[in-house]
Amino acid sequence: MSTSDDTERAEQPEQPEHATGGVYTSAGKKFTRDTNYITTRITADGRDGYPVQAGRYRLIAARACPWANRTIIVRRLLGLEDALSIGFPGPTHDERSWTFDLDPGGRDPVLGIERLQDAYFARFPDYPRGITVPAIVDVPTGQVVTNDYAQITLDLSTEWRAYHRPGAPDLYPEEHREEIDAVNRRVFTEVNNGVYRCGFAGSQAAYDRAYERLWSALDWLEERLIDRRYLVGETITEADVRLFTTLVRFDPVYHGHFKCNRSTLREMPALWGYARDLFQTPGFGDTVDFAQIKAHYYVVHRDINPTGIVPAGPDLSGWVSPHGREALGGRPFGDGTPPGRVRPDERVDEAHTPLRLG
Amino acid sequence: MSTSDDTERAEQPEQPEHATGGVYTSAGKKFTRDTNYITTRITADGRDGYPVQAGRYRLIAARACPWANRTIIVRRLLGLEDALSIGFPGPTHDERSWTFDLDPGGRDPVLGIERLQDAYFARFPDYPRGITVPAIVDVPTGQVVTNDYAQITLDLSTEWRAYHRPGAPDLYPEEHREEIDAVNRRVFTEVNNGVYRCGFAGSQAAYDRAYERLWSALDWLEERLIDRRYLVGETITEADVRLFTTLVRFDPVYHGHFKCNRSTLREMPALWGYARDLFQTPGFGDTVDFAQIKAHYYVVHRDINPTGIVPAGPDLSGWVSPHGREALGGRPFGDGTPPGRVRPDERVDEAHTPLRLG
Repeated sequence: MSTSDDTERAEQPEQPEHATGGVYTSAGKKFTRDTNYITTRITADGRDGYPVQAGRYRLIAARACPWANRTIIVRRLLGLEDALSIGFPGPTHDERSWTFDLDPGGRDPVLGIERLQDAYFARFPDYPRGITVPAIVDVPTGQVVTNDYAQITLDLSTEWRAYHRPGAPDLYPEEHREEIDAVNRRVFTEVNNGVYRCGFAGSQAAYDRAYERLWSALDWLEERLIDRRYLVGETITEADVRLFTTLVRFDPVYHGHFKCNRSTLREMPALWGYARDLFQTPGFGDTVDFAQIKAHYYVVHRDINPTGIVPAGPDLSGWVSPHGREALGGRPFGDGTPPGRVRPDERVDEAHTPLRLG
Repeated sequence: MSTSDDTERAEQPEQPEHATGGVYTSAGKKFTRDTNYITTRITADGRDGYPVQAGRYRLIAARACPWANRTIIVRRLLGLEDALSIGFPGPTHDERSWTFDLDPGGRDPVLGIERLQDAYFARFPDYPRGITVPAIVDVPTGQVVTNDYAQITLDLSTEWRAYHRPGAPDLYPEEHREEIDAVNRRVFTEVNNGVYRCGFAGSQAAYDRAYERLWSALDWLEERLIDRRYLVGETITEADVRLFTTLVRFDPVYHGHFKCNRSTLREMPALWGYARDLFQTPGFGDTVDFAQIKAHYYVVHRDINPTGIVPAGPDLSGWVSPHGREALGGRPFGDGTPPGRVRPDERVDEAHTPLRLG
C-alpha cells in the first residue's frame, strides 16, 4: 500500500544494527544496514494470518532505539494503549539479544521471556539475522510476528483504525501520502540511516562521503522547515515522527559518538525550533528517555567507544525552552486532539528528561 | 622564580601523555599526568650549564600539542625566531616517539634525526619517561636540554630578554606574577589538564568527577571574562597563552573526543568572544593548525577512538567572526606592538585554518 517500506529496504543488506557482539564497523568498508526484516503484517483483514485484535499482540520497543521510538510515539498519538500492550527492553542489549533487564526478575511480565530472541526463535528456530526492536509478538504463541519497523507504524495508522482513540490524528492522510513517502525516503537514507553511516564508517573516505551526504540533507531540511511548521501539509504526520526520533538523539549521541559534528542541532535554527516544538507536543518528548538513549549507544558500541563511558552532557534544558513555531500556523492534530497524559506505568523516569511529566 | 611550574607538577605522576602505544586510559583509574620533566634550564647566567645564546638551541614543538603550542605562540610574540630555531614534528607520533615525518626525508633538517627520542637518549641513554614536546635541544651536542613546558615559556619571557624583538610584550610582568601564577594554577589543574582527565578517565565515576571539575572551572572563567578582556591586568599575559591553547582545541577535539560536552565553547559567550579575540590577534591563531590538532588526538588515542577516523567538523568559520571584545578596552600588547607576519617557512597550511595568512 505504500512504497516507503520498500524505500527503507533499498540499501544493500550487509550488517545488522543490533546484537553483533559490540562490533559495528568493518575496516575499510562503509556501513550498510541490514534491511531484511520479517514482513508479515498484522492487518484488519488478517490476510497474513494475523488479524488486528485488541489484547492479542505485544509491542516490544526499547526507548533507546530510534526505530522503536517511532512506534512508541505513534501508538500513543493514536491511543492504542488498551489494544496493544507494550514491553520495554533495557537500553543495553548483550551480544545475543535485547533483554528485559528493567523488568522484575529480568523477564517481560506478559511474554515471560528474558531475551527478545526467544520470541524470534519461537517462530523461526534458525533465525539468522539481528534481533531487533521494534518487534510485535503474538502473545498466545509467543512468536514474533514482525520487526518491520517501516511498516509497523503505517499499519498502526491504517490497519488498527478500529481501536484508535477518539480524536486520534491521521498520521498518514491519503491526500499527502505521495509527498510523505518521498520525504520519508530521503530522510531515511540520508538522515535516519545517514547518522549511522557516519558513525560506523570503516574508513576515512567512507566517513567523509557519509558526512557530506548527511549535511546536504540537513541543509535541505533546515531550508524546508524555515517557513513550514511540519514536514508535509499543515499537521503532524508520519514524516515528522520519523525525523523527530533522529533529531532528538542528535546532540546527545550522533554529534560526538557518530562524529556528525559540522554543528550541533541547537545551531540550526529551523530544525532546532521544529525539534523542540515536537518535543513539547504530547506524544513526542514524553516518550524520550535521554539517559537510556545515551547508555545504549555509548555502552553497546564498544568498537567505537571501548571504555563504555557515557558523557554527562549535553545540557538538555534547552529542549523545554520556547520555540516560537506556533507563529508558523499549522494544526498539530488536524481535526483531532492531543493525547492525554502518559499512563503512570509507561512514564519516562523523570530524572531522564527535562520535561515535567507529573 | 615562579611557583607556577611547581603547580604544574602538583598532580601525582602516573602516566605520560605521549608515546604510550596508543593506550591512554587505565580501567577503573582516573587519569593522572606524569609531571616529572627534565628541569634543566637555559638561563641568562647559564647556571645549569646552558646559557642563553642565539642559534645554539632548537625548539621542537608539534603544532598539534597544546603544551607545545604555548611555546610556538610565546616565541612568536617575543620575536625569538632568529635566536631560537624551531622544528615541527608531525601530528601523529608512533608508539615510541614524536617523529619528523613532515620534513624532507623524515629528518629534522637541523638535528638530522628522525625521532625526537634520539635527542632524549643522546643525553639520557635510559630515559624512562614519555618523549614529549615541547623540548629544547642543544644543537651542537644533539642532546635535549629541557622538556619542562611550564618553565620553558616563562624562561623565554624572562631569561631570553636580550633577544626579544623591539616592541615585544611583557607576558610575565612583575607586578602581576602572583595573580598570573594563581590563575595558571587553577587553569592547569582544572582546564588544561581537566579535559584530559575527562577524556582518559578509566571509569564512569572518575569521568563524572572530572566533568564536574572541568565545568566548575569553565563557569568561573566565563564569569571572570564577562567584563575583562584578558585574564590578568589589561594586557595579554602568559595566563592567556595557557588558556588559549586549550580553548582553541575545545570544540574540534575535547567536546566530542574527550566527552567535555555540557556545551560547546561556541555557546559560552564570554569565553567564545575571548577565544576569538586572541585567535584573531597576531601570534595566536596564526600558530594554530586545526587539521594537525584533529589528526593528533583522533589518530593517536586508539584506545578511545579505535577506528582512527577524524571528524570533518566542526565548521571553523566562526573563529574569524567579529567578537566585539575591543569594547572592553585593554591594551593587548601593553607598551609594545603586535608581531609582524609569520615567516613563510613557519606558516600554517592555509587549508588547515580559517585565517587568511597571506
